[in-house]
Amino acid sequence: MSILDRIRIVLIQTSHPGNIGSAARAMKTMGLKRLYLVSPKEFPHRKAHEMASGATDVVDASIVVETLDEAVKDCSLVLGTSARDRAIPWPLINPREMGETISEEPGDSEIAIVFGREQSGLTNDELQRCHMHIQIPANPDYSSLNLAAAVQVLAYECRMASLHNAASELEWDFRHATADELEYLFAHLQSVLVELNFLKAQTPRQVMTRLRRFFFRARPDVMEMNIFRGFLAAIDKQMEKNKEEQS
Amino acid sequence: MSILDRIRIVLIQTSHPGNIGSAARAMKTMGLKRLYLVSPKEFPHRKAHEMASGATDVVDASIVVETLDEAVKDCSLVLGTSARDRAIPWPLINPREMGETISEEPGDSEIAIVFGREQSGLTNDELQRCHMHIQIPANPDYSSLNLAAAVQVLAYECRMASLHNAASELEWDFRHATADELEYLFAHLQSVLVELNFLKAQTPRQVMTRLRRFFFRARPDVMEMNIFRGFLAAIDKQMEKNKEEQS
Repeated sequence: MSILDRIRIVLIQTSHPGNIGSAARAMKTMGLKRLYLVSPKEFPHRKAHEMASGATDVVDASIVVETLDEAVKDCSLVLGTSARDRAIPWPLINPREMGETISEEPGDSEIAIVFGREQSGLTNDELQRCHMHIQIPANPDYSSLNLAAAVQVLAYECRMASLHNAASELEWDFRHATADELEYLFAHLQSVLVELNFLKAQTPRQVMTRLRRFFFRARPDVMEMNIFRGFLAAIDKQMEKNKEEQS
Repeated sequence: MSILDRIRIVLIQTSHPGNIGSAARAMKTMGLKRLYLVSPKEFPHRKAHEMASGATDVVDASIVVETLDEAVKDCSLVLGTSARDRAIPWPLINPREMGETISEEPGDSEIAIVFGREQSGLTNDELQRCHMHIQIPANPDYSSLNLAAAVQVLAYECRMASLHNAASELEWDFRHATADELEYLFAHLQSVLVELNFLKAQTPRQVMTRLRRFFFRARPDVMEMNIFRGFLAAIDKQMEKNKEEQS
């Protein structure tokens, strides 16, 4: 079971039903499906479905409860989002650390991420029901993420945590050129550069050193290497024609 | 100067002006301020201001241009967002890796993060103007992040990178070539390849695409770029001599 299946998003007393829909959409894009609504102001509501776009299934499957306690009672990790510093210091993590925290959770634990009201967030009482507080490191001059945006960022970190061990390598179409293939290319390149009088035969070092560094950095695949080989061969051909005509 | 001040968000042909406002809001919550709009369908527009909420200053300061080239010409790192896999593989990073990439950029480099159209994203031609592609690891069954949500996630990673950014910058002897300098190099390279009959003028695409990808991956500094320029100029000279002798 993916860790994403063990995470629930809890929204407390959401005022605008559209925000419930937008939050559901943000969740689903990152693979989260379980939505709890604590005393929403207006729900069910047409606006929630509209804003959910293709995530109406998340809205339809949401569970409405009256209190935070009901929403999180079977959870072994409850994380509350908080924009402000509180009078009593509480373990405070950023979204990245949240990802690390949830990926270290035992495989049977239920996890809740709790979001407060649009205007006023979570109450102190609600925050004190959380193991840790999550703070999104927003711009201090303008920290006004809307509800869906905050859900999007934390859902993204949940997904990153779920992918953490399944790091996907980029598939490439051709293998890297080998060291000897590259040396062959460098030798050809150098001879063409000398032939073109671009390089003085006696002082090729600086330029060739820089070209080597450049090619090593790019790590050409064999197709790319063959393009350069063909390019050099075409120059050779041109120069030969030149010589023939001169003689 | 914070790395956030060197990052511009580029939105291409945005259809709905409200999305420009929402994107501006997402940017500002994370401390990004510089917005470029490439041929927006409707702008300026009341809706853009409405959706920007407290980020109208970002909307007002946005720069409208006609082409992607104009928006990124002085950038030494251009990152394009992409939802799909492409025929020719391109360096592909996730938002986290994007944060690492930008935090390793030299302190004077300009960085662009490019977002495509709401419905169709970036064209292949636009993607081939990017050093790397960023893919947000969305739910394969529902990957429909709206524009502002995608901007929010990447802006968040930009902010995380800016907070993380220690003085671990690699010292390099020359600055990176900019986007317009590279386009100039590609145009010259293509004309030389056609002249050499290495490229059929009518079907340069595959080879040029692979060469673009190669150079973008290597990210030439100006000295390396000048070596290639000199190389191409030397070939040109040789070919002219050729023609003179033929006539």
